[in-house]
Amino acid sequence: MKIVAAKKILKANDQLAEENRQKLTAAGVFCVNVVGSPGAGKTTLLEALFAALDGRLRPAVIEGDIAGSIDAERIEKLGVPVVQINTQGACHLDASMIAAAAEDLDYSAIDLLLIENVGNLVCTAGFDLGEHLRIIVLSTTEGDDKAAKYPAIFQGSHALVITKADLLPHTNFDTRRIAADMKRLAPKAETFQVAALTGEGIAPAAEWLAAKCAASATDD
Amino acid sequence: MKIVAAKKILKANDQLAEENRQKLTAAGVFCVNVVGSPGAGKTTLLEALFAALDGRLRPAVIEGDIAGSIDAERIEKLGVPVVQINTQGACHLDASMIAAAAEDLDYSAIDLLLIENVGNLVCTAGFDLGEHLRIIVLSTTEGDDKAAKYPAIFQGSHALVITKADLLPHTNFDTRRIAADMKRLAPKAETFQVAALTGEGIAPAAEWLAAKCAASATDD
Repeated sequence: MKIVAAKKILKANDQLAEENRQKLTAAGVFCVNVVGSPGAGKTTLLEALFAALDGRLRPAVIEGDIAGSIDAERIEKLGVPVVQINTQGACHLDASMIAAAAEDLDYSAIDLLLIENVGNLVCTAGFDLGEHLRIIVLSTTEGDDKAAKYPAIFQGSHALVITKADLLPHTNFDTRRIAADMKRLAPKAETFQVAALTGEGIAPAAEWLAAKCAASATDD
Repeated sequence: MKIVAAKKILKANDQLAEENRQKLTAAGVFCVNVVGSPGAGKTTLLEALFAALDGRLRPAVIEGDIAGSIDAERIEKLGVPVVQINTQGACHLDASMIAAAAEDLDYSAIDLLLIENVGNLVCTAGFDLGEHLRIIVLSTTEGDDKAAKYPAIFQGSHALVITKADLLPHTNFDTRRIAADMKRLAPKAETFQVAALTGEGIAPAAEWLAAKCAASATDD
């Protein structure tokens, strides 16, 4: 019984996600689902990417949080349009939340929509939001065993961004270990290593994102 | 419909958790539910606490992970009895999993049962496992805004252990901010600041845990 219900919910979510994706694609908006643990540095990464893109794309953000609007306020300071979703306890965003949040965004004024998911390495893995790409953000201070312990979220991601690289000398994080696990779980995924607060390594990640966004626009 | 189902599941869990707690209490086993983000340092904290307790209590561990047995293998190396629960995708432990795992533990040979929950700041908050205490583990590298963003898990906890204190000089973590949020959410909770890898600050946390364990034994 429980399993059937869960399947039904996921099926309904998949349909709604597909509708989201079609609307986004039709409007020429490239959409990225950014996932990772609480405190992985997702918001700081977005801030650094916007700085690196330097006005090249017209970005917008949907912020997903259990409570509050701390991250949305940070994005708003950059002059980037942002919609805050408060999940009120729910552990992940779903496609219906994105459809609702999209009503407050003007797709004709956006090239790149970044969705910052709730900090969660587990539940976010099961819910397609209608994005074109998913980026998994992992900080060096979380440990190099995370792909082995939470494989699903890594498996379905198109890029791994290793954050807080400036703290590498102070941790026992082995980049080769996570790279090997990622290669096994998602052979085609790109891996970037950044220190978002200093900007180190951000340029290649921003270039990759801009290229993906441009390629998507050409496909249409 | 969905809401009713969720309530039913939670009610069933609460009943089973109460049964777990009664069995633990009757057997003189003090049980602690250790929660926190992926990579907060929960396993390293357990290792440091066992070293600090230095054989004073007879501990055992239940390890909850989505996949694998990386953490359980670390605990086993210390000679501490350990049972690994693989949730196979589920984002939190529940009381039925603990009841099943308990069948592989000899309660008469245990004083302190530490349950390391799945790394998750959200879903673990809603599920009583039958523990006597809950400890929330937060690393300095996760950021000082986590209690504001994930209030439920902090609210229901009896102690906050701030880990990776050795990395404080390299972060923008403000201990006063998290302490203020914790005081608002859980006024009676204790706060400890530790660097588990070096042992810094572990002794007071271990003493507190031993005292709670002893007080519980006296109550019976």
